[in-house]
Amino acid sequence: MAKQKFAKESVTIMTEMVFPNDTNALNNLMGGRLMHWMDIVAAIAAQKHSNRIVVTASADSISFKQPINLGNVVTLRSQVTRAFNSSMEVFIEVTAEDIPARKKLITHRAYFTFVAVDQNGRPIEVPELVPETEEEIEHFDGALRRRQLRLVLAKRMKPEDAVELKSIFNITEK
Amino acid sequence: MAKQKFAKESVTIMTEMVFPNDTNALNNLMGGRLMHWMDIVAAIAAQKHSNRIVVTASADSISFKQPINLGNVVTLRSQVTRAFNSSMEVFIEVTAEDIPARKKLITHRAYFTFVAVDQNGRPIEVPELVPETEEEIEHFDGALRRRQLRLVLAKRMKPEDAVELKSIFNITEK
Amino acid sequence: MAKQKFAKESVTIMTEMVFPNDTNALNNLMGGRLMHWMDIVAAIAAQKHSNRIVVTASADSISFKQPINLGNVVTLRSQVTRAFNSSMEVFIEVTAEDIPARKKLITHRAYFTFVAVDQNGRPIEVPELVPETEEEIEHFDGALRRRQLRLVLAKRMKPEDAVELKSIFNITEK
Amino acid sequence: MAKQKFAKESVTIMTEMVFPNDTNALNNLMGGRLMHWMDIVAAIAAQKHSNRIVVTASADSISFKQPINLGNVVTLRSQVTRAFNSSMEVFIEVTAEDIPARKKLITHRAYFTFVAVDQNGRPIEVPELVPETEEEIEHFDGALRRRQLRLVLAKRMKPEDAVELKSIFNITEK
Amino acid sequence: MAKQKFAKESVTIMTEMVFPNDTNALNNLMGGRLMHWMDIVAAIAAQKHSNRIVVTASADSISFKQPINLGNVVTLRSQVTRAFNSSMEVFIEVTAEDIPARKKLITHRAYFTFVAVDQNGRPIEVPELVPETEEEIEHFDGALRRRQLRLVLAKRMKPEDAVELKSIFNITEK
Amino acid sequence: MAKQKFAKESVTIMTEMVFPNDTNALNNLMGGRLMHWMDIVAAIAAQKHSNRIVVTASADSISFKQPINLGNVVTLRSQVTRAFNSSMEVFIEVTAEDIPARKKLITHRAYFTFVAVDQNGRPIEVPELVPETEEEIEHFDGALRRRQLRLVLAKRMKPEDAVELKSIFNITEK
Repeated sequence: MAKQKFAKESVTIMTEMVFPNDTNALNNLMGGRLMHWMDIVAAIAAQKHSNRIVVTASADSISFKQPINLGNVVTLRSQVTRAFNSSMEVFIEVTAEDIPARKKLITHRAYFTFVAVDQNGRPIEVPELVPETEEEIEHFDGALRRRQLRLVLAKRMKPEDAVELKSIFNITEK
Repeated sequence: MAKQKFAKESVTIMTEMVFPNDTNALNNLMGGRLMHWMDIVAAIAAQKHSNRIVVTASADSISFKQPINLGNVVTLRSQVTRAFNSSMEVFIEVTAEDIPARKKLITHRAYFTFVAVDQNGRPIEVPELVPETEEEIEHFDGALRRRQLRLVLAKRMKPEDAVELKSIFNITEK
Repeated sequence: MAKQKFAKESVTIMTEMVFPNDTNALNNLMGGRLMHWMDIVAAIAAQKHSNRIVVTASADSISFKQPINLGNVVTLRSQVTRAFNSSMEVFIEVTAEDIPARKKLITHRAYFTFVAVDQNGRPIEVPELVPETEEEIEHFDGALRRRQLRLVLAKRMKPEDAVELKSIFNITEK
Repeated sequence: MAKQKFAKESVTIMTEMVFPNDTNALNNLMGGRLMHWMDIVAAIAAQKHSNRIVVTASADSISFKQPINLGNVVTLRSQVTRAFNSSMEVFIEVTAEDIPARKKLITHRAYFTFVAVDQNGRPIEVPELVPETEEEIEHFDGALRRRQLRLVLAKRMKPEDAVELKSIFNITEK
Repeated sequence: MAKQKFAKESVTIMTEMVFPNDTNALNNLMGGRLMHWMDIVAAIAAQKHSNRIVVTASADSISFKQPINLGNVVTLRSQVTRAFNSSMEVFIEVTAEDIPARKKLITHRAYFTFVAVDQNGRPIEVPELVPETEEEIEHFDGALRRRQLRLVLAKRMKPEDAVELKSIFNITEK
Repeated sequence: MAKQKFAKESVTIMTEMVFPNDTNALNNLMGGRLMHWMDIVAAIAAQKHSNRIVVTASADSISFKQPINLGNVVTLRSQVTRAFNSSMEVFIEVTAEDIPARKKLITHRAYFTFVAVDQNGRPIEVPELVPETEEEIEHFDGALRRRQLRLVLAKRMKPEDAVELKSIFNITEK
């Protein structure tokens, strides 16, 4: 197994058209359908990094500000941001485009985590992730903080131990 | 419009069987498919509370610990926990059951928020939510803290203003 | 194996939204789609009673009076009414709701039967069904008559032997 | 509008392969999926007879004796058997074929009824059905009896008025 | 194995309704959806001729002149035209019908080829195809020419060796 | 409207996982399902070039040499090669990847053509396509020859007028 892999090696792009069955009464893409696509595009990025079967471990909170309309072309781009033993954080960016109207907008950004497993479903180590570009380095650095937030929210880490996380609350220890 | 509605009025139960196309290489339900179901069952609860068209505003972070297998029966139960002007927080609890093996497990708990809108997609006020049972009251009380976390994570509230949220970090102001 | 189980132990509730692909040219839910859902919700009830793999044995005649519209929320409730050796009769009640219009209506009632089978598809005995409420007892009592009708219609019972069935024709033997 | 049409003018043939998502834990086609196909093939036959939008009015009881397996080719043949004002009875015959094993079997026979409607969903008259072959005449003659059974079961006809129906119970009036 | 089979033994008819999710922004059936159906109906014809598992080997060029609309009934008829060792050419004719408008049109004609394979995916010989009707003979005769075109286009035959093919270019050898 | 656009402006990438319902009895992706995906990814490229609604005009012959297996990740890359008034030729290249086995292969190459239309379905002019890279120029140059082949095969051009096309048959005019 490769000991290290570059972030760019996991980049995955998925394009979907919004069909009637994907929409609500306002002809907007339903959030759940988008999360379904996010999970697939992110799982493929994690597969590319680990060359393993992967299972979804968590989805971070997602905010749905921008409606995506029937007939829009939706592009999802995913990339592994950092690896921790057998788990990988994946960043997903969603762009929606109304091509005839020449409107294109980044509508969503999300983080999912995956665990690489063997044929029996047991966690197995993955290569380290090496970030190269400025954006990749920023994602890499933030991954630690997001991981602590996940552990605190899942009650698997005490808040007082989440050293990295505290920074987002601008807290200086007494 | 009713000024107030009880939490129990929005309860929605959805049952799904896990079919081959919903599963990954280990025959486990894919996370994205489950989030798709969560969004639908939660949207219906929000519709019942508001008697309006609703759109997904956010999904809180979800952790996927327990695998759900091909052939399992999945039951999703949703209920509005609290209303804020035009938005509603919905709690979803997922139970997976291998009926022939007599195994039944609560596998996931999640919070989604929805906004009630009129025919033109503009936010519109919803009734207050009145909790009754101990569990409903607990969900109601926690909703404020979760809301602040969402706002901080979406960078729409300064961390130092998230008074309720700080409690989860056991922080006493200096 | 439990020798007896209560009717309430098999109750299954399924909620579906009517999407465009489920509807005909009048934007009404197609009958076949509804029967597909009925079969799934009833199969799960039969699984719960028997803790076995079950296969559909028959669907009784279904009448489609009330149209169900695009965007409606459809709730299907199923419950085993009576067990006969390896077979179970399941009652399904369908409610359609136009939530924004605050209209809710029981639209369909149907009976399906299932057979519990082992891994090789061979019929296998199931627990007796014990009805408790007045409605459950009524379903339990009627099950015998409906079973005779099924056997007569399938030409597996001579009409003159269908003692229970004759009652619906108000026939006194000569 | 044509005053009369032949039975053969409505014949519709539909072929489907059984895919994994259509099957249960024994790899058999689920009953509900088959009923979904029956409804579509029968609706098309009713459309052909009436040249109208049609809606499902009822499905007669269906018995599922023969399992249909994953990979089988399923052929559904439908044909209008008789018209009554705005309603039509359609006969559906299902054949399942395991082509590599050279096994072919008629597995199901069923009757559905449809109502022809105008753009506003109001019932509208259809042509008379003229049977030609021996089999078509048999279906035509039996349609009256099946119609009475439907009306009795739906409690819209008193059993004592179901003159045709009584014949299946070999009842001679006192 | 039968040494020879008649063209008519492989005839397969498939009927589909055009649902919203099958259509583009003009409410016309998408070409890709139609090709999907063509592949299935043609594969079944090839299965019937060979009594084997078959895999798609090629699809000839298809021209989409006639739009097919939402709600249309689409009938696909397939038939093996000629067998070559382990491969079979299948002709598919597509008819679209707007039944309420009494409009019916042959919209597409296409040729697909399939290879019969054993359980390990290895090609296996199939019966000779015996054409009977004038149309079947015409398809049979043209099959050789179309096969040469496929081989030339796939660069597996030199154009100068494509004796049959040259005829369509009205070329007399110098 | 832009008078000219670069080939690279239309590049579209689509990634799909092969799920059970997409496969045949050998667990290989069905050809029809792949053509369905090709049509969507190519339509999006044509939309990007024209900023219009587009409809499929033709699919050139496709050869299926390489099987694609269940669980493979399929990447489809499409790009407009040349524009002719209101029509566009799109090139699609398909790569299949068995990620855990580290196997990746270009499996299919295909050409589809699309017509840009207005809201009433009438053809409308599109920008010229400007090729830049060597590969783009090769596709651009070949487009004329492929167009003639399409017209000849559709019997809309006399073979003797297909000047460009004759080159593939190495024919020097007498």
